[in-house]
Amino acid sequence: MSAPLLGVDLGGTSTKLLLGRPGPDGAEPLEQTQVPTPRGPGALDLLADRVQAFLAGRTVAAAGVTVPGLLDGDGVVTRSVNLPWLDGVAVGDVLGTALGVPVVAVHDGRAAARAEAVLGAGRGHADVYVLTLGTGIAGAQVIGGQVLAGAHLSAGEVGHVSQDDHGRLCSCGQRGCLETLVGAEHLARRWQEVLAAEGSTPQTAPTARDLVEAARAGHPGASAVLDQATTALARALLALLATVDPGLVVVGGGLGQAADVVVAPAVVKLTERATFHSVPPVVPSALGPWAGAWGAVLGAADQR
Amino acid sequence: MSAPLLGVDLGGTSTKLLLGRPGPDGAEPLEQTQVPTPRGPGALDLLADRVQAFLAGRTVAAAGVTVPGLLDGDGVVTRSVNLPWLDGVAVGDVLGTALGVPVVAVHDGRAAARAEAVLGAGRGHADVYVLTLGTGIAGAQVIGGQVLAGAHLSAGEVGHVSQDDHGRLCSCGQRGCLETLVGAEHLARRWQEVLAAEGSTPQTAPTARDLVEAARAGHPGASAVLDQATTALARALLALLATVDPGLVVVGGGLGQAADVVVAPAVVKLTERATFHSVPPVVPSALGPWAGAWGAVLGAADQR
Repeated sequence: MSAPLLGVDLGGTSTKLLLGRPGPDGAEPLEQTQVPTPRGPGALDLLADRVQAFLAGRTVAAAGVTVPGLLDGDGVVTRSVNLPWLDGVAVGDVLGTALGVPVVAVHDGRAAARAEAVLGAGRGHADVYVLTLGTGIAGAQVIGGQVLAGAHLSAGEVGHVSQDDHGRLCSCGQRGCLETLVGAEHLARRWQEVLAAEGSTPQTAPTARDLVEAARAGHPGASAVLDQATTALARALLALLATVDPGLVVVGGGLGQAADVVVAPAVVKLTERATFHSVPPVVPSALGPWAGAWGAVLGAADQR
Repeated sequence: MSAPLLGVDLGGTSTKLLLGRPGPDGAEPLEQTQVPTPRGPGALDLLADRVQAFLAGRTVAAAGVTVPGLLDGDGVVTRSVNLPWLDGVAVGDVLGTALGVPVVAVHDGRAAARAEAVLGAGRGHADVYVLTLGTGIAGAQVIGGQVLAGAHLSAGEVGHVSQDDHGRLCSCGQRGCLETLVGAEHLARRWQEVLAAEGSTPQTAPTARDLVEAARAGHPGASAVLDQATTALARALLALLATVDPGLVVVGGGLGQAADVVVAPAVVKLTERATFHSVPPVVPSALGPWAGAWGAVLGAADQR
């Protein structure tokens, strides 16, 4: 059997290391661990040391590393908000030299979506749309195992499609975007407003998770906020079905896990509103926090 | 030089025949003609006779035929509203037997979009979105020369994305679809309503073309109708940019030709509203009514 592949998922605070082989059985890791992300100049040398310690002498055929930021065509980071010392660095080349194997740098979000589609909940489907519901909302169309990144690498910004020109201001500068109705921070703010209107002042700022729990507990104000959110999500999914017609939709992210009060009601509304549309199965993501590392492994597999 | 290819664009009333080679110089026909579409049982034998007369003994390497309807994976027509005698017929196989060359059947709209992207206004671009504005509104994403048809062959139904749940009823059963704001029949109806409100009763039912001419002549009511339409078109394009991020948008169809009062104002609004979006060039289609025949030629080229 050929040497395994290494996936490095470089996060803002912690980095995941995964040794595995993508195969017909999907995502079966040989070993995985998590280390603090080294910071500042020399960070990649430190990271290489940690990888060597993790590998403990084992040989890998190739490696992939996710980057939380923009990459140019040569694998050079053009902008990383969370890891600014990577700007201008060819992360794959630097790590590759240190490790002595070919290392490819991949975009973190697209890598995770690709892994979900190829090895996770989308395994076996040729035409998958991966939707991540968190603070931000990101989509990725994965056809034949490849993410359609778009001509300017900005495909899948479905969180920034406006549903209402007079809606709330979005971080992107538009109004009424899906993110202002379903994004976790916006939901938390709306929930805070409901509580304030009731005269309730919680000691800590409420979160989208609190909102989800309040809705589960039957709080009418919480349910009303989520009702508006799931209607917006259903509208966005209908537009997606009409525009790209996926064979399967995989929903991940923190709010994607709230199947009972977020995803399921949205799918009910979607199905009620669908006319000519072919409504595909809508399923939860399967790889969880390891999707990015598996995406790095898939990037490594491309190099062989 | 290899034998040329034959493209047959089977329309509801007339059929276009084109002999050509798709090449680096784009769409250069060797010869083209148009014949009435044979109707009823035996229509394809009659069509084969007309093709033979057109070829006049010249050899072709392969042929493609567009079908105005749905095709299954084996090239059998599952439903053609305009040419019902094709239902259940493997049009490519039947024509291929009659002509003695391999013939592939392709979907008319997707074939035309592919030709525009590969040989027409999109030539040289890897990531093209072709938008056709007519009675219906159809989109097609063409990546690397291939149309993304969607998992259920219904990608590109951007005319049936609702912008307003309380808008006018659309033929698809939804309300407020882009088609109810920009589709030619809806525009004609809105123009008729403007005229009726003014007490004007034209002898023949007004068309979208009349509306375009009235707007060009400075009629405020006509301009107001088109202002609403171009705002809707800009919104739809913004959603498209966020979702699929094309490198180039090619606009065709009858209303697509009204660049001055439809496409250009929509692009101005799009550019004003864009925030994070990369606004690609928006250009008019180039192949005109021969796009379908060239799409059939491209289908034939795939067979070699």
